[in-house]
Amino acid sequence: MKPSHIEHIGLAVRNLEESIRYWENVFGLQCYRVEEVADQKVRTAFFKIGDTKIELLESTDADGPIARFIDKRGEGVHHIAFAVDDVKDALQSVQEKDITLIDAEPRPGAEGLQIAFLHPKSTHGVLTELCSKPTNEK
Amino acid sequence: MKPSHIEHIGLAVRNLEESIRYWENVFGLQCYRVEEVADQKVRTAFFKIGDTKIELLESTDADGPIARFIDKRGEGVHHIAFAVDDVKDALQSVQEKDITLIDAEPRPGAEGLQIAFLHPKSTHGVLTELCSKPTNEK
Repeated sequence: MKPSHIEHIGLAVRNLEESIRYWENVFGLQCYRVEEVADQKVRTAFFKIGDTKIELLESTDADGPIARFIDKRGEGVHHIAFAVDDVKDALQSVQEKDITLIDAEPRPGAEGLQIAFLHPKSTHGVLTELCSKPTNEK
Repeated sequence: MKPSHIEHIGLAVRNLEESIRYWENVFGLQCYRVEEVADQKVRTAFFKIGDTKIELLESTDADGPIARFIDKRGEGVHHIAFAVDDVKDALQSVQEKDITLIDAEPRPGAEGLQIAFLHPKSTHGVLTELCSKPTNEK
């Protein structure tokens, strides 16, 4: 497994609109997409910066993973996502190196990507996402 | 202020050599530099990925900021650094937008960059670094 670039950095936020304003007004970035990902109980907003993105994550459910993260640690960096050629192959590669998986199989994420998470207990505390474009978009 | 790209993501680690092995063996990245930054009481290691970098940070002092971070939150993402044209100009711009500064003036960071940190209490919990190349290297 060798990722080509950091696909995005996921930031847990309390209020999506307020955080969109922060990144637009203070950093001069432009939000190009807002999307709800029901599966992960979040509303997301995306900004491009260089060859990566900032993904804001607001919980849509008081018991969702982002709500629980903010309850415990406050707003801040939630995860880092790496672009790989094929998530399924990458999962097999990291599993052979004794990395603990959250997702044993790829699942659909925001922006039509295939995604899977690795457990922070085996990634030096970094909640790590792997993602790749669906086969028909490569 | 409009950053061109994410210059690096800073990760707090307990043991630099062990974490270098993780990023090399599991992610196939290559550590190209190890540097001590006495001012920040850290040893750092760098990996390029796309147009950004991963910077590992190991404390050289039990009372240093990275040691205190790990004591409180464990290993993980410590800060995000944005590449700007001129840190001094960027500091002025964000200060006009009521962002709280940790560094009122740029100071020397790793890799010869000029750097300054913004306080996470006014950046939605993200410890934020701004950095630029010294004037004679632009």
